[in-house]
Amino acid sequence: MSLSTDELAVYFDYLRFPSISAAPAHQQDCRDCANWLVELLAKWGLASALHETDGHPIVLAHTARESSKQTLLIYGHYDVQPVEPLALWETPPFEPSLREGLVHARGATDNKGQTAALLIGLRRLLGRGPLPVNLVIFIEGGEEIGSPYLADFISTHRPQIACDGVLVCDTSLVTAGWPAITLGLRGIVCLEILIHGPAKDLHSGIFGGATANPAQALSRILARATDADGRITIPGLYDDVLPVSNKELISWQVLPWTAEWFTATTRCSAPTGEQNYSLLERVWARPTFEINGLTSGHQGSGSKTIIPATALAKISLRLVPNQDPDVIAALVATWLNQQIAAEGFVGEVTIDHGGYPFFTPPENPLVHAAEIALTQTFGRAPAFTREGISIPIASLLQREMKVPIILAGLGLADCNAHSPNESFPISHLELGAQFLENYVAQLGSSAAPSHTTSPNELHS
Amino acid sequence: MSLSTDELAVYFDYLRFPSISAAPAHQQDCRDCANWLVELLAKWGLASALHETDGHPIVLAHTARESSKQTLLIYGHYDVQPVEPLALWETPPFEPSLREGLVHARGATDNKGQTAALLIGLRRLLGRGPLPVNLVIFIEGGEEIGSPYLADFISTHRPQIACDGVLVCDTSLVTAGWPAITLGLRGIVCLEILIHGPAKDLHSGIFGGATANPAQALSRILARATDADGRITIPGLYDDVLPVSNKELISWQVLPWTAEWFTATTRCSAPTGEQNYSLLERVWARPTFEINGLTSGHQGSGSKTIIPATALAKISLRLVPNQDPDVIAALVATWLNQQIAAEGFVGEVTIDHGGYPFFTPPENPLVHAAEIALTQTFGRAPAFTREGISIPIASLLQREMKVPIILAGLGLADCNAHSPNESFPISHLELGAQFLENYVAQLGSSAAPSHTTSPNELHS
Repeated sequence: MSLSTDELAVYFDYLRFPSISAAPAHQQDCRDCANWLVELLAKWGLASALHETDGHPIVLAHTARESSKQTLLIYGHYDVQPVEPLALWETPPFEPSLREGLVHARGATDNKGQTAALLIGLRRLLGRGPLPVNLVIFIEGGEEIGSPYLADFISTHRPQIACDGVLVCDTSLVTAGWPAITLGLRGIVCLEILIHGPAKDLHSGIFGGATANPAQALSRILARATDADGRITIPGLYDDVLPVSNKELISWQVLPWTAEWFTATTRCSAPTGEQNYSLLERVWARPTFEINGLTSGHQGSGSKTIIPATALAKISLRLVPNQDPDVIAALVATWLNQQIAAEGFVGEVTIDHGGYPFFTPPENPLVHAAEIALTQTFGRAPAFTREGISIPIASLLQREMKVPIILAGLGLADCNAHSPNESFPISHLELGAQFLENYVAQLGSSAAPSHTTSPNELHS
Repeated sequence: MSLSTDELAVYFDYLRFPSISAAPAHQQDCRDCANWLVELLAKWGLASALHETDGHPIVLAHTARESSKQTLLIYGHYDVQPVEPLALWETPPFEPSLREGLVHARGATDNKGQTAALLIGLRRLLGRGPLPVNLVIFIEGGEEIGSPYLADFISTHRPQIACDGVLVCDTSLVTAGWPAITLGLRGIVCLEILIHGPAKDLHSGIFGGATANPAQALSRILARATDADGRITIPGLYDDVLPVSNKELISWQVLPWTAEWFTATTRCSAPTGEQNYSLLERVWARPTFEINGLTSGHQGSGSKTIIPATALAKISLRLVPNQDPDVIAALVATWLNQQIAAEGFVGEVTIDHGGYPFFTPPENPLVHAAEIALTQTFGRAPAFTREGISIPIASLLQREMKVPIILAGLGLADCNAHSPNESFPISHLELGAQFLENYVAQLGSSAAPSHTTSPNELHS
């Protein structure tokens, strides 16, 4: 099956809304886009409604619900990133343009293209009669600004969004033609350590030799936070780290993100880090302790012979499944405070924001169904990947929904998401549609639903 | 003897010249001040002349020279610091005002007051017939801007300035009534260490765990440059350090710069540093390795989750007699470069300016004569002190003149040198005059001269 004119029109119409969530001037455009989605899905026969939040509205639609069937929720977002610098766009960002197999527009990939692909698949499924699963379509308008109203919305709309799993199509393939299921993401904890030395910068000639230097204390503390391999020495830091399963490790061995890829990308001479772990384990599945910034004393050119009054470091730790950011933040803050005291200084440790890691076990039946569907669609089994970054929406959905979250994206590394000339291969629209068709069929043929909510709640 | 009206007029007339060497607008005022000095000394019977430099002129004068007598050179500077902020002065800086025993004016202490005291003593000596020593008066106009032309002038005027010792009256008493001879000053070496990490700041989520962080490497290097007591671990660093003599150590035991003084002044909880050395040894006679500044990655508020591209530290080392700044700079730079390489990084170590330490041994006959003269003048033996700072002119004179430099100043810690409302106790003018009279008499009664130049050269 190949894309019809109607199907392509859905995608192009969707792209024409300048639904930039960060720009107050585009507030109405976001609402127009949401309304367009609501009407589209209603026209296709779904129960579809616009839901207000304190920000951009949320689109919620569902097929006929039958308690004997599993329920899959498809998450997407209709908002897009800003488009500046406009001068770098080859064609206007909200006038989709097809060139050499690529559709160029803001949101072409992230996330309108990937959502449109699934919606096209949904439309095809609907055209063939009753679905073997219940589908809930959930498209928000605040993902690019941190989904500020999402947790609240989920907690007040649990019956409407109850499901057995969530499909998020907002990540990337390994490379063109090689699908991936992103099973894990790292979390984060950000802290600041400030050490107070003398009440003001002191003359290093008059007082140097008898005055403790906060920058030296900071250096000593930071030096002993990790060993030469970058392994964190803070007691208890690794207690909750989930070991990587053999299934994942084997899957990672053939991935193209090798030491050569790493050095070419970073222009560092070689990967460093924990010697007993592979490169991908280090960047995907191991916690890190990173100095993000150092500030003390003289910052300008030349010399200023002082003992600085303060020394400050910005620190962040990447967390891995099953580390809890609050637990780790407390652990690290306690350790840092102990070190400051051990150095004979007074200081402050401030905990900034944190974020949960994300993990869906590869053994999960919904993952397995996605694995089969992707293999059917691409003619190649998906890789089980992770990413070292956080995708706040993934861990938020996991924590709020308490069901498996399946990250199976259709993007490519060179799609220019968030950048000028964002693009999406038109062929991926077809692949995405087929993937949903295959996934729904696969879920329909698999075991009975294991609802986390009762059928009654589902129909309330 | 107490000050005559004429003597006081010399001081006040001297103070009225706004001889700010740093201000181009005051260039002529500096020259006028120098000419006034030349004429004053000529009027008193000295061979006196203005000598041009590439900057402010130098005043050079001498009494009748006899090769059978020792020659003492008195160094002073007629230039003063800028006066801003003017609003903080209680009376105009160049209209000397006597209030409650203190003369208020820019230069009241530094250095016109101390020079005027010696000149008044000189005038009294001249009124009594031939002197028992040859005196050379050397008053420059660029001390407050780093004496940029002094070394060159000395090297081209060696016959005129040949002497057995130099008296510099530009330091401070211990406290009022307690004289001091400053035997030692620390030198300095300033360096910068820059470590290059990735070619640009990298996303700590994508690359963290396999990317060496230059801020962590810098912390490790700085941490191991000193031990917990602040003792420098760089091999060879202490090789040339001159141990402090017992004569000095005993003199230091009764000085008021105690741990209590230290904590009150710095508001640090207690002095730190090398446990086997007294507080004054640490700040006066021990080398230090000080971090003056740290700069890496994110400097603003909040978090930025990067692996920074670079990490930089500004470092300075205080040096003590007999350390050579060039030798130490090379030693430290070599060590830092080794550490950067050992950490697997590329980086640069830049040597900024350096300055020699200064030392005059307490056993020197000219020091001993000054000790006796100060005891006669103040009724109390002088302390043999040092300072932890550099006084560039002291080490410059020592290196260029190759004779003992006697630092015996008349200032007080609360004289506001370089600050608004600079002042000088009028009684110190009398004490300074008496000190020179006693010093000349003492030198005259001591052993024959040991010229570093031949009598012929002296008279050329």
